[in-house]
Amino acid sequence: MGLSSMRVRTQNGLSDMRSIWWEDAIVKAIDQRLLPERLEIVAIKTHEEMAETISDMTVRGAPSIGAAGAYGMALAWQSGIDLVDASRVLKATRPTAHDLFHAIDRMLSAGDELVEAAKDYADSIVEKCRLIGEAGNSLIEDGMKVLTHCNAGALATIDFGTALAPIRVAHRSGKKIFVFVDETRPRFQGAKLTAWEMANEDIDHAVIADNAAGYYLRREVDLVIVGADRVAMNGDFANKIGTYEKAVLAKENGVPFYVAAPVSTFDPTLRSGDGIVIEQRSPDEVLIVNGVRIAPAESDALNPAFDVTPAKYVSGYITEKGVLATDELAKMLAV
Amino acid sequence: MGLSSMRVRTQNGLSDMRSIWWEDAIVKAIDQRLLPERLEIVAIKTHEEMAETISDMTVRGAPSIGAAGAYGMALAWQSGIDLVDASRVLKATRPTAHDLFHAIDRMLSAGDELVEAAKDYADSIVEKCRLIGEAGNSLIEDGMKVLTHCNAGALATIDFGTALAPIRVAHRSGKKIFVFVDETRPRFQGAKLTAWEMANEDIDHAVIADNAAGYYLRREVDLVIVGADRVAMNGDFANKIGTYEKAVLAKENGVPFYVAAPVSTFDPTLRSGDGIVIEQRSPDEVLIVNGVRIAPAESDALNPAFDVTPAKYVSGYITEKGVLATDELAKMLAV
Repeated sequence: MGLSSMRVRTQNGLSDMRSIWWEDAIVKAIDQRLLPERLEIVAIKTHEEMAETISDMTVRGAPSIGAAGAYGMALAWQSGIDLVDASRVLKATRPTAHDLFHAIDRMLSAGDELVEAAKDYADSIVEKCRLIGEAGNSLIEDGMKVLTHCNAGALATIDFGTALAPIRVAHRSGKKIFVFVDETRPRFQGAKLTAWEMANEDIDHAVIADNAAGYYLRREVDLVIVGADRVAMNGDFANKIGTYEKAVLAKENGVPFYVAAPVSTFDPTLRSGDGIVIEQRSPDEVLIVNGVRIAPAESDALNPAFDVTPAKYVSGYITEKGVLATDELAKMLAV
Repeated sequence: MGLSSMRVRTQNGLSDMRSIWWEDAIVKAIDQRLLPERLEIVAIKTHEEMAETISDMTVRGAPSIGAAGAYGMALAWQSGIDLVDASRVLKATRPTAHDLFHAIDRMLSAGDELVEAAKDYADSIVEKCRLIGEAGNSLIEDGMKVLTHCNAGALATIDFGTALAPIRVAHRSGKKIFVFVDETRPRFQGAKLTAWEMANEDIDHAVIADNAAGYYLRREVDLVIVGADRVAMNGDFANKIGTYEKAVLAKENGVPFYVAAPVSTFDPTLRSGDGIVIEQRSPDEVLIVNGVRIAPAESDALNPAFDVTPAKYVSGYITEKGVLATDELAKMLAV
């Protein structure tokens, strides 16, 4: 693999790795379902195994899933399997994953060196995340307390992360920072994955119930950085459920609120956030927690996976092209 | 016991009961720790057993705990136990429970008929909650969608509830309503207790992750009603962590936000919410969910149990004296 940056505590001490990478003609990936309890690296040898890895959420996070799709195509190519057939298998895993389709289509038109093409695809995402880290670092001052929601970290984006990249870079540049980690119900990606990344990097942090974000925004948070699943031309963006709440509370308390995302997350076909369809996930994610049902048998739950935050709550967008204001987005996207 | 109103599904069909009551020279109470999985009624025969019942949270919710304290004193009195000794045992259970101290002190000066005095104390709370239900019902129109946070229900207040009393009365008066139940991390009182009360009453409802409250406030919630642990003279109030978030989001979206509480919750010694000390509870409530640790071993959590919501976010206060605007509070409290 190329440069890797995410610091991970292993049984043999500290190691720098990505969440997914090519190694000796196969693919390796961190099994994200087992975190934070234990670190296990899975070996993926065929495109069918890769499809399984994507659909069972061993690998999660849109950019990491994109890399998984590209690597899956490379595995099929080196085994001489029909690429169109392989692409169908891989695309059927997560039917709403834009990055996955994009990555697979790139591989279908990549010519005849798919291993290198897949590696280049992953490297280009990592480089964008590194640049997002550099750009976002300029917003973080020594001593700041930063709040983040969900996991827009190295696990989700192959390496560095989007929202977590500036935090990583700030910490490594010697700034003393503290991170409030929203636990991020219903799936706890904050408590499980972001806290794991923070612990591995030795960054001071505390997990909080999502309900406590407002409490801390009112008194001591200096900066909010979140990721995005999709950004519209006017700056409205979709992200994990609860992001909208934190954005409103940040504005109400005069706390700057930034969205970190590569330019590829900005959708030029989307005029505003009104056009974003929100995935409604299973009620069981809310009702059953660690195997135990929390609500009465008669009670149902509603479980929107994402919400849309209007641009008016966003202080700026941290991209690989720098930190952009809302009114700079259209110009940047036109280039 | 006096009139009881909370509808509960038992093995023998529907039954109306309170969360705690006097019956045949002992006290009975619903074991709230077992809800919603199963309904179990505990029998409490001595003030020591009552102290245990309070400290192990079999009985919870400030007004219910107050009744438990009063009944505990009555149990001591009928056994001829020294009342000052008994009061010390009972007061040591939940050291920050204002209602508990108040109820026990009332019993210490109640003369020589403590069983009747304790029953009267409980009945007077129930009557206030009934009146809160009547007053709040005037705010609820047929077809409305109401959001509530935590459990300010009959379980917490002996009967009817505070925030849930208007919902109960509206439903019983034939209005078709729908209730969004915030699950209320970290302890899930919404998913566990409020959903249980709604299911028992056959009120249409859905549990949502606290993160999803903003999503629904933006599009379909008509009214928010929450309880309060303490209200200052200027209308600022303390309530379960996350209440402040929902209040800000309600105002941002033009959704009326009401606080339901008896006049005894208004503290005339408290000029504003700035004076309210927030209890910080164990990080384990956040980090360990249904027996499973969700975050890495190295990660800590912060766990404020309450937050303070400034009066500017409150549309009005639903009390046993009617629905009051912020500027009517001081006059009401002076009376």
